[in-house]
Amino acid sequence: VPRLSEDELIATIFAPLAGPGGLRLEDDAALLSCAPGEELVLTKDVLVAGVHFFVDDPPDTIARKALRENLSDLAAKSAEPRGFLLGLVLPADWREVWLKDFASGLANDAAHFGIALLGGDTVRTPGPLTVSITALGSVPRGKMVRRGAARPGDHLYVSGTIGDSALGLRLRGISAPDWSAVLAGDAQAFLLERYLLPQPRLGLRAALRAAAHAAMDISDGLAGDLVKMLRASGLTAEIAIGDVPLSPAAEAALAQNPALFETILTGGDDYEILAAVPPAKAAAFEKAAAQAEIPVRRIGVAMAGKNPSIFRDNSGRALNLKSLSYTHF
Amino acid sequence: VPRLSEDELIATIFAPLAGPGGLRLEDDAALLSCAPGEELVLTKDVLVAGVHFFVDDPPDTIARKALRENLSDLAAKSAEPRGFLLGLVLPADWREVWLKDFASGLANDAAHFGIALLGGDTVRTPGPLTVSITALGSVPRGKMVRRGAARPGDHLYVSGTIGDSALGLRLRGISAPDWSAVLAGDAQAFLLERYLLPQPRLGLRAALRAAAHAAMDISDGLAGDLVKMLRASGLTAEIAIGDVPLSPAAEAALAQNPALFETILTGGDDYEILAAVPPAKAAAFEKAAAQAEIPVRRIGVAMAGKNPSIFRDNSGRALNLKSLSYTHF
Repeated sequence: VPRLSEDELIATIFAPLAGPGGLRLEDDAALLSCAPGEELVLTKDVLVAGVHFFVDDPPDTIARKALRENLSDLAAKSAEPRGFLLGLVLPADWREVWLKDFASGLANDAAHFGIALLGGDTVRTPGPLTVSITALGSVPRGKMVRRGAARPGDHLYVSGTIGDSALGLRLRGISAPDWSAVLAGDAQAFLLERYLLPQPRLGLRAALRAAAHAAMDISDGLAGDLVKMLRASGLTAEIAIGDVPLSPAAEAALAQNPALFETILTGGDDYEILAAVPPAKAAAFEKAAAQAEIPVRRIGVAMAGKNPSIFRDNSGRALNLKSLSYTHF
Repeated sequence: VPRLSEDELIATIFAPLAGPGGLRLEDDAALLSCAPGEELVLTKDVLVAGVHFFVDDPPDTIARKALRENLSDLAAKSAEPRGFLLGLVLPADWREVWLKDFASGLANDAAHFGIALLGGDTVRTPGPLTVSITALGSVPRGKMVRRGAARPGDHLYVSGTIGDSALGLRLRGISAPDWSAVLAGDAQAFLLERYLLPQPRLGLRAALRAAAHAAMDISDGLAGDLVKMLRASGLTAEIAIGDVPLSPAAEAALAQNPALFETILTGGDDYEILAAVPPAKAAAFEKAAAQAEIPVRRIGVAMAGKNPSIFRDNSGRALNLKSLSYTHF
């Protein structure tokens, strides 16, 4: 099978995705302009086959997951997506049809979320497929929503539902977990889809910018990421596990196996938003989220203190979590 | 041996490199402001152990090479370095002492070239060490020097010397090449160093911005990159191989083995600058380069036409190159 050269691959498969600043991917570099009064928000995520996704995942979802993880960071910072660069590290056995599906997924999502390909690099590796994306967004100067700026008394909000992706990952294990038997096929499909394809909460940007003291995206599990946000703000909290929003599928799994609360809180890959909102703006935040059709739930209140043991069971006892975060590292 | 967690590793090893926009690497994203009238220039290079460098290269030079390849792109575009993001993909056997040396090399070069770490991602891989850097620079709006804007009659200039790095790579082969016997130890050391550590020609930025119609950095070999620039400009050229600037070490090797012209022209990893300068600005370009203490040599003139066979031997015959570029792909 004749293989495309790197130049041919870029010209035929990726150049059609390039925005104006990408210069048809024909130059050494890309251009991005910045409007007066704006600043740029930059984020980078690297995904490795066998670590962050399955090597046999559909190629279009691999591309979309890589892009969406970065878009989730931009959403949490209330940044408008502007452009991205793609580092594509291909194993020796890459095939053109795979790459076209990958690029097609990337093109669809780039168009859907309004973010253009600006440039990148394509190399080969004796190791696994690796995808590195750097995404750029813009915010009015000084208006990026920070992680470490929560204040005592802020209401803590979570978007969507927590733990679905971690449960979806468990469903991909070699043997079916005990709790999967109680889930209908569509509930299992829902959890699997949540693992495959994050939903970046870009619709929350206006609500966050208008109302939040602090925000971050939940990528390494609610437990660890909440501690990160509170610690960076010099705060703590007490959260009842019953207040964490769960999908019907996760509720059913947890009812069958109560030990799953640990997977749900620490499993990661949620790509939901965690936000700290002052009480005076809580109603406005909830209204703006409802207008964006993104569910948000108040899970607790930030408090002065340093106690890292934040979650409480239904009888008010501190939950003992073996590890706060799933780590890919 | 206890291992640092990802958070500890970032906090202890990489956070000290972060500039103000890097927010101590404690947020989901970094910030970069853009002065009025400026635009940003973005470039990304990915390097894989065993493909783009040797796995047993000194860790500080691996980091510096990765950063400098990006700085070379910024130099060719006449952009002022502003910041970079690091994607670090670590194999299972990474060691803290290795990582500290890597970060130390990166810190030294970042300080030397005036570019701050803004953020990034650290992940593990079952494959080889992989380093992905995205660098950002700035230019006055509309002033980025493009690749495809050469015009007929432009003088074609090359900075420094060509082929050293490709010869240095050959010296790293399992058996010593025939021509290495004629090289003194310091000549061999020079070629090896040229492979290990590119010298980004940031000093040429002012000369390029003031005088060049077009420029690019020479990363895949002069032969292939010159064709890229001329083709993007709809032009051709005739270059006598005797006009290509060579170091004394490369001259000595070529005298011993005349077939090395192919390695020299197509071997890549030069990280010199190729520029197209109109005749009326040639003297000013040469003077500005001399003030920056960067040698430049005129190797020919861009002409209307599409002939991709550009290089001529000493008797004026077209050179037959098996492949225009070394490809890592």
